[in-house]
Amino acid sequence: MSDSLETPLSKVKRGPNRAQYDKATAFEIMDASLMCHIGQTKNGQVFVTPTCHWRDGDYFYWHAHSKARNVKGPIDEPEKVCINISLLDGLVMARSAMHHSVNYRSVTLFGVPELIEDKTEKVRQFKIFLDKVSPGRWEYLRPISDSEIKATGLVRIKIDEASIKLRAEPPVDDPADNDWPVWAGVIPLNRSWGEGETDPIQSQTYPKANSPEAF
Amino acid sequence: MSDSLETPLSKVKRGPNRAQYDKATAFEIMDASLMCHIGQTKNGQVFVTPTCHWRDGDYFYWHAHSKARNVKGPIDEPEKVCINISLLDGLVMARSAMHHSVNYRSVTLFGVPELIEDKTEKVRQFKIFLDKVSPGRWEYLRPISDSEIKATGLVRIKIDEASIKLRAEPPVDDPADNDWPVWAGVIPLNRSWGEGETDPIQSQTYPKANSPEAF
Repeated sequence: MSDSLETPLSKVKRGPNRAQYDKATAFEIMDASLMCHIGQTKNGQVFVTPTCHWRDGDYFYWHAHSKARNVKGPIDEPEKVCINISLLDGLVMARSAMHHSVNYRSVTLFGVPELIEDKTEKVRQFKIFLDKVSPGRWEYLRPISDSEIKATGLVRIKIDEASIKLRAEPPVDDPADNDWPVWAGVIPLNRSWGEGETDPIQSQTYPKANSPEAF
Repeated sequence: MSDSLETPLSKVKRGPNRAQYDKATAFEIMDASLMCHIGQTKNGQVFVTPTCHWRDGDYFYWHAHSKARNVKGPIDEPEKVCINISLLDGLVMARSAMHHSVNYRSVTLFGVPELIEDKTEKVRQFKIFLDKVSPGRWEYLRPISDSEIKATGLVRIKIDEASIKLRAEPPVDDPADNDWPVWAGVIPLNRSWGEGETDPIQSQTYPKANSPEAF
């Protein structure tokens, strides 16, 4: 099986010099981010929904209320959805307005969502998701109930049609501007998980939850 | 003019208790974020493009290469695009997997993009954008050229059809779980702009660029 995610649909038209199609890089970006934006249509109108996602092997997963648009919509009316996963990494300050940019990692993924209904597989996936959000936490939770499993819709798409766009470099100005007298460089965006804020109604003291690797 | 952005299209169906339609709150979220996700279609296929945005009064703006999909597409084939602007604020750790959630601020905005072609207005908007990205920087840059103005497509949509979803609170568990012996609370996401990394080709020293208020 090819490790390229390039197809006629996923091929990047603008800025192809920043485009990649390597599956391993796409996986890294998906795993490094918690949230994606799912694009779908209903009666010809486009909708974009921010959604938390996870990955298991070659499949990209999300969940929601079983009647939510981003779960039920593409099952009731199958279509190839478009999902963008992006992380802003920094601001690129050039010598001219035109060459200002951002450093970022982004994957645009296409696929027809498939509903997962097997109860055991649903629970296995929910645990994979929770292990992404807070490693090791699942075992300490009140066990999941049948009605909760039923109420939660789980979908996945195979990761085989996608593009990656990446920028991770200093400004690239018109060469004639390189000595223009203004500071030029990159302002990095720092993200970190803060100290857990305990639920005010909790009276006992327990070890705080682990933070994720992803943002 | 009404300050509510609610319409039949923007009305939130799932989780209406977290929905708002207040224009001032939508403006705050737009101004607090640098990046949005634009959903549009081409020949029935949906595309989602991460894009930097800004606001001027009642209008939401973005720019790109004049031939880029997110500028040229909705002008060539007018349609009501859907734009989501979201900021993840924290992870909500509940006592059961089901009640885990995220704290966030999100606006979903609908509108038909309008191309701005007036040269003076284009430059005025580019300055408003740069003032968002790095306040006070515009005056120090190599002045913008006619060909740069022409090559950059500028579009806007009026902010009059949108919904806001917000969550900013501790976990809400099933009451019967409130004494389950596990830590529960919120892990906040901290964002900050780091120290500017000077372009390696710059030999002179200049004052570094200001960081934005937005993330």
